[in-house]
Amino acid sequence: MTTTSHPLPQLDRARRLDAADPLAPFRDRFHPVPEDALFLNGASLGRLPSATPALLDELVRGGWGDNLAQARTQWLDLPQRMGDRIAEVLLGAEPGEVVAGDCTSVNLYKLAVAALRARPGRTTVVVDDDNFPTDRYVLAGVAADAGGELRTIHTDIDQGLDLATLRAALDDTVAVVCLSLVSPRSGALLDMAAVTEAVHSAGALILWDLSHAVGAVPIQLNACGADFAAGSTYKHLMAGPGAPALLYVRRALHDLTTQPIQGWYGHREQLAMRPGYDPDPTIRRFLTGSPPVLSLTAIGAGLDLLAEAGMDRVRAKSLALTAFFQELAERELLPHGFRLAGPPDPAQRGAHLTYEHRAARELVPLFAAAGVFVDHSLPDRIRITPAPLSTRFTDLPRAIARIRDVTIRHERKTG
Amino acid sequence: MTTTSHPLPQLDRARRLDAADPLAPFRDRFHPVPEDALFLNGASLGRLPSATPALLDELVRGGWGDNLAQARTQWLDLPQRMGDRIAEVLLGAEPGEVVAGDCTSVNLYKLAVAALRARPGRTTVVVDDDNFPTDRYVLAGVAADAGGELRTIHTDIDQGLDLATLRAALDDTVAVVCLSLVSPRSGALLDMAAVTEAVHSAGALILWDLSHAVGAVPIQLNACGADFAAGSTYKHLMAGPGAPALLYVRRALHDLTTQPIQGWYGHREQLAMRPGYDPDPTIRRFLTGSPPVLSLTAIGAGLDLLAEAGMDRVRAKSLALTAFFQELAERELLPHGFRLAGPPDPAQRGAHLTYEHRAARELVPLFAAAGVFVDHSLPDRIRITPAPLSTRFTDLPRAIARIRDVTIRHERKTG
Repeated sequence: MTTTSHPLPQLDRARRLDAADPLAPFRDRFHPVPEDALFLNGASLGRLPSATPALLDELVRGGWGDNLAQARTQWLDLPQRMGDRIAEVLLGAEPGEVVAGDCTSVNLYKLAVAALRARPGRTTVVVDDDNFPTDRYVLAGVAADAGGELRTIHTDIDQGLDLATLRAALDDTVAVVCLSLVSPRSGALLDMAAVTEAVHSAGALILWDLSHAVGAVPIQLNACGADFAAGSTYKHLMAGPGAPALLYVRRALHDLTTQPIQGWYGHREQLAMRPGYDPDPTIRRFLTGSPPVLSLTAIGAGLDLLAEAGMDRVRAKSLALTAFFQELAERELLPHGFRLAGPPDPAQRGAHLTYEHRAARELVPLFAAAGVFVDHSLPDRIRITPAPLSTRFTDLPRAIARIRDVTIRHERKTG
Repeated sequence: MTTTSHPLPQLDRARRLDAADPLAPFRDRFHPVPEDALFLNGASLGRLPSATPALLDELVRGGWGDNLAQARTQWLDLPQRMGDRIAEVLLGAEPGEVVAGDCTSVNLYKLAVAALRARPGRTTVVVDDDNFPTDRYVLAGVAADAGGELRTIHTDIDQGLDLATLRAALDDTVAVVCLSLVSPRSGALLDMAAVTEAVHSAGALILWDLSHAVGAVPIQLNACGADFAAGSTYKHLMAGPGAPALLYVRRALHDLTTQPIQGWYGHREQLAMRPGYDPDPTIRRFLTGSPPVLSLTAIGAGLDLLAEAGMDRVRAKSLALTAFFQELAERELLPHGFRLAGPPDPAQRGAHLTYEHRAARELVPLFAAAGVFVDHSLPDRIRITPAPLSTRFTDLPRAIARIRDVTIRHERKTG
């Protein structure tokens, strides 16, 4: 572990912030990690809630092992039950508008095809280049299969999406626009209501990728009139590696849209074993096959924590943490080759912030060796995500000091 | 629990069979169930291997909780690693031909679209009506999206697939034929080599649904020249509720086929975050997004058991169990309204056998109340699956006696 060569910046202030933090007790609700380890990588995989192992053991030994006889049917509606809870706690959506199952990419595929089917005659799909690449890959395939075009607009990493650029890309060939509410790259937080309105006014539908937003910022899908959404649960929702993704469809669209992977979980009478497919009139028509029950159940523990904390308090602490980090970084890191890449106003970002450094690739493993865990993103970026329920304010001066010292040593070594 | 009104049939013989059973010790490798409970429903959900809870706990607390820092990349190749083991132990396929991830219906969708793309100009998909309904639903959608036709041939539940009927349905519009190697309904086991040859000689590709076959019968995909396969792992592979499905593509087809849900897991350079999609040249091109790591890992324990037992011994015991049940049923159940629905020769079936009884719907819950757990399938069928690794021969006379006595009481009551 690194010993710091300079005094820790702002440690007293951090201690006062911790003392006043209403969410501080949540730190004890996570699987313990070494006192010296500072995890600032919650945007790739959320920490393990303490409640998760027992929840899984109850499912495995209790639900599967002891109750094998009932096992065939007891999880049939789990995608909806889990979806309803996610809708209420995190999405500003109604019961019956959200399911959980499949992975984010499969859900994006279903929803993009559904959107194209709901806009016959239109075959253009619009994305920006600030999305996670899988969104572009999936949508390129969907557009090509529809005989259409994937139209990619440019988003500057510092400025975020430009609404005028978006508007200019929308014509009457555009069926659907897919954007990340929080950029996986810069952390930029879009104005969901304004973007949705712009897309709707061009006669297109909006598909939100919520992967870096759900559990990170309060979301109001209904209030914003959003059409479709998909997103990961293993980042800010802390549901574990590869946990199934969420899928949202605005209720008014349910019986106007169909998706292409029509399996028995989406059938009106799932267990009737009819010869032909008849899509259920509800959100169930977006389901396909058996959900991965173990991985799906694990969503519950992180969801409970976020529900108990309340997304407003989570967001408030996240803003305070990222603003504090940014302030410390300004004095301690910017002189050493770091540059904030993304909106400078914390309120314009989600729960992470990104710095560019030309040695990012070499530095990130050195930070890890010093007990500070952050994400490296290509080509030369460092993503910092202080998870509000498990990060202390005092963690940040400690992290900053180690990052600074490791960087200085690396500078000296490489000249 | 029911007390039997007649002596248990053939109990002495069953005891001798148990004493001579080389797989008998495997019974202790499963989560214990009450001595009186007789599980004959392994075709809906396999029993919990004793090793599974520790395997999951190690993953959750160890892999996720303690090693969060490495968590981002340590499971990237899990779909291939698990696929390679399934290929070797269960499928007669080579490393690099199988992955595990997504659900069976999603995998059938990917493979059916891939097959249609590999046979340009052909748009007909052929299935029989003995498939699990989700196969027909998925394929109907795929055929419609291709502007083609789903051609459904009839399979008699007693006779099984008629090869002449299949041949008659194959013309030069047929791109792909999808059949269940073991019928979920009757248990009929198809001749993979003969069917594959018939399909190939018509210029079409074969897509096998192995859901009721994998872990139940030895499978030789390579030797039979099979093109594509998908199948469930939560039945005979005992991987737990909704565990991810397998997907097989014959190596020679890898770079001739593409699938429609093109996500980052299928990209040639998954982590390079390129702007455009470039499918990996290997089986990875059939992957899409993050696999459900918890559910995927759970496949390991059942796979270990089957590998240790050996599929030849598993099949031999399965044949002995189902033949014994059939012999007992002939004397004890057929006089009470039961009729075998499916091939009478055990070697022509997978690991389950099916009986029709006009009161099946009422009887199955009564059997469960008497501690005998079997599946009800619509409209009036009872599916019996003695899992070779956890079922004793002595379980069968006990089950038969309870089934008989419950049925007699029900007959008297309902007149």
